Amino acid sequence: TQNYRITLLPGDGIGPEIMAVAVDVLKVVGKKFDIQFEFQEALIGGAAIDATGEPLPSATLDTCRNSDAVLLAAIGGYKWDSLPSNLRPEAGLLGLRAGLGLFANLRPAKILPQLIDASTLKREVVEGVDIMVVRELTGGIYFGKPKGIFATETGEKRGVNTMVYTESEIDRIGRVAFEAARKRSGKLCSVDKANVLEVSQLWRDRITQLSQEYPDIELSHLYVDNAAMQLLRAPKQFDTIVTGNLFGDILSDAAAMLTGSIGMLPSASLGAQGPGVFEPVHGSAPDIAGQDKANPLAQVLSVAMMLRYGLNQPEAADSIEKAVLQVLEQGDRTGDIISPGKNLLGCRAMGNALILA
Amino acid sequence: TQNYRITLLPGDGIGPEIMAVAVDVLKVVGKKFDIQFEFQEALIGGAAIDATGEPLPSATLDTCRNSDAVLLAAIGGYKWDSLPSNLRPEAGLLGLRAGLGLFANLRPAKILPQLIDASTLKREVVEGVDIMVVRELTGGIYFGKPKGIFATETGEKRGVNTMVYTESEIDRIGRVAFEAARKRSGKLCSVDKANVLEVSQLWRDRITQLSQEYPDIELSHLYVDNAAMQLLRAPKQFDTIVTGNLFGDILSDAAAMLTGSIGMLPSASLGAQGPGVFEPVHGSAPDIAGQDKANPLAQVLSVAMMLRYGLNQPEAADSIEKAVLQVLEQGDRTGDIISPGKNLLGCRAMGNALILA
Ligand SMILES: CC(C)[C@H](C(=O)O)[C@@H](O)C(=O)O
Ligand SMILES: CC(C)[C@H](C(=O)O)[C@@H](O)C(=O)O
Repeated sequence: TQNYRITLLPGDGIGPEIMAVAVDVLKVVGKKFDIQFEFQEALIGGAAIDATGEPLPSATLDTCRNSDAVLLAAIGGYKWDSLPSNLRPEAGLLGLRAGLGLFANLRPAKILPQLIDASTLKREVVEGVDIMVVRELTGGIYFGKPKGIFATETGEKRGVNTMVYTESEIDRIGRVAFEAARKRSGKLCSVDKANVLEVSQLWRDRITQLSQEYPDIELSHLYVDNAAMQLLRAPKQFDTIVTGNLFGDILSDAAAMLTGSIGMLPSASLGAQGPGVFEPVHGSAPDIAGQDKANPLAQVLSVAMMLRYGLNQPEAADSIEKAVLQVLEQGDRTGDIISPGKNLLGCRAMGNALILA
Repeated sequence: TQNYRITLLPGDGIGPEIMAVAVDVLKVVGKKFDIQFEFQEALIGGAAIDATGEPLPSATLDTCRNSDAVLLAAIGGYKWDSLPSNLRPEAGLLGLRAGLGLFANLRPAKILPQLIDASTLKREVVEGVDIMVVRELTGGIYFGKPKGIFATETGEKRGVNTMVYTESEIDRIGRVAFEAARKRSGKLCSVDKANVLEVSQLWRDRITQLSQEYPDIELSHLYVDNAAMQLLRAPKQFDTIVTGNLFGDILSDAAAMLTGSIGMLPSASLGAQGPGVFEPVHGSAPDIAGQDKANPLAQVLSVAMMLRYGLNQPEAADSIEKAVLQVLEQGDRTGDIISPGKNLLGCRAMGNALILA
């Protein structure tokens, strides 16, 4: 029997409801594949602020470090929006990424045939879309210094952030992306703004250099503005995309929205070693929290990513992904993905349907 | 008779062909509205590099300064792609913006009913979309310092760019945006990344402050990742958008692509005083250059923006916009916007159709 210690970070809003479903699914999968999961829960985001005054208590980081993988649900809500930014829920998320060294963020955006009509794009444009965005997560303008609001000589304020990448930072995310492309269709598109930014010129040079080690991968480059256009114009041209932290934030959300059902999309954040963090792309949806209306499927698919990328249990991951497709196939839907003629289920009922599938 | 001196910058690729159509249209409009245009041509981009070694010769900047408005076609092409970045065509464009102090870039993205099927989005999602992106154009990470590629202590390279905005820079683009929103539907959405970037926090604070002077305008704020999503999910929620240089580059291109016909979209770049620059959003399309296949309509609509925003001749602008709608209505199309049952015209023939319309 394989034994894993999993840290659960339910967070805010609908977080606890969807996490409960994920845990149920994990228990069933554990039995089926003879894997034992030991769960430990910790505080993050608004819930942590309310309990301790900090969005990421050091006890939480310790608990995460002392585990094989971290399952995160969602953080944030109106309640904490007016706090100073270093004390807001988002600061907890950024601290978790930095604290665990999670430099690689994998965000798949795949059209599910059962939900294709949810896309705002025409069927023929998005049919078959299957994109993996590999986003650098611990560098770039999110963490670069100097940053802050400073006074100028004339007394007016000046806001400053710095977009920085070193060669080694580019290389390590580049390798993750080339490897990911190799497991997929063998096509990698690197996105930057090298016609304006020096940091992007270094990015483009290094990725181009690196491609010599991956002669089987077809590498292309796009400027970020053009990439945003092409995602809309002809998304099927993309397979794996690699880009920096800020561009990845924007483009992975655009790619996610192509599917029309952001409630279905998981993500994985990985470091060089140590536990990864697995979480849905959607937010904490405070408006429907506690009403058993949330869609737990992105959380459940994050469990599958955890099994695949964090614990190297691909069969268990497959079985979860198959169960999700099966409930969709049988017409089960939560409110965010409902369409005429389908069965409307709550969060908990969707979890039960999965377990029976 | 009103008299204007217009600088023409045909640039590269299809630039000269579409500029020729624009000049013909201006001549006809001039006669109709009793306006005299004096044209002076200057070099920019690849054409300037080939002739002088520089993408923006100082003579060009002088000619532009010494005119009432600048009409630019398009710059760039494969030929100049391997030059060092400060000698590439794009550097000429950035130099022109900085040199003329063009801090406000207006990019309308409006769905034309005649071309709605060109959109990759569903008809019901994009019908009636009419967005104006107001992009800050002479600040932010495009011009912030320090920038460059530096050596670290360990000898590896480090690429750096700096996103900077001062209060006065934010205020002046903010005012342009509030005024634009006032002339439109009275709704303004400011886009930033204030949950991560200090420069965005200052941006959000100032725009919020400024809104007290515009009590008739309904102001909202979105994070840039969410804005990219919302543009795809429900673009009709937007009227006027204001944002910084980099976010504006990305979002205005995404908004443009919503229409499905980027060959139709003009833009205006304005300073506090002095001539503005008016140019199509599309590029120089080197693959079809010199073949009389280009769509001149974005260039012609840029002439209309020049008349409206640069020369305060709204009636002349109206007449051009009406002529464009009329040729579309009568079924005339260039290759990029052709659909079954319509008349395929070349660049020059489209120009002639406009003149007769
Ligand atoms: C909440 C925010 C700090 C975060 C980010 O910008 O990275 C989010 O948008 C994401 O993409 O995970
Ligand atoms: C060509 C490039 C420098 C330019 C920019 O990034 O501003 C272009 O993309 C634009 O939007 O006008």
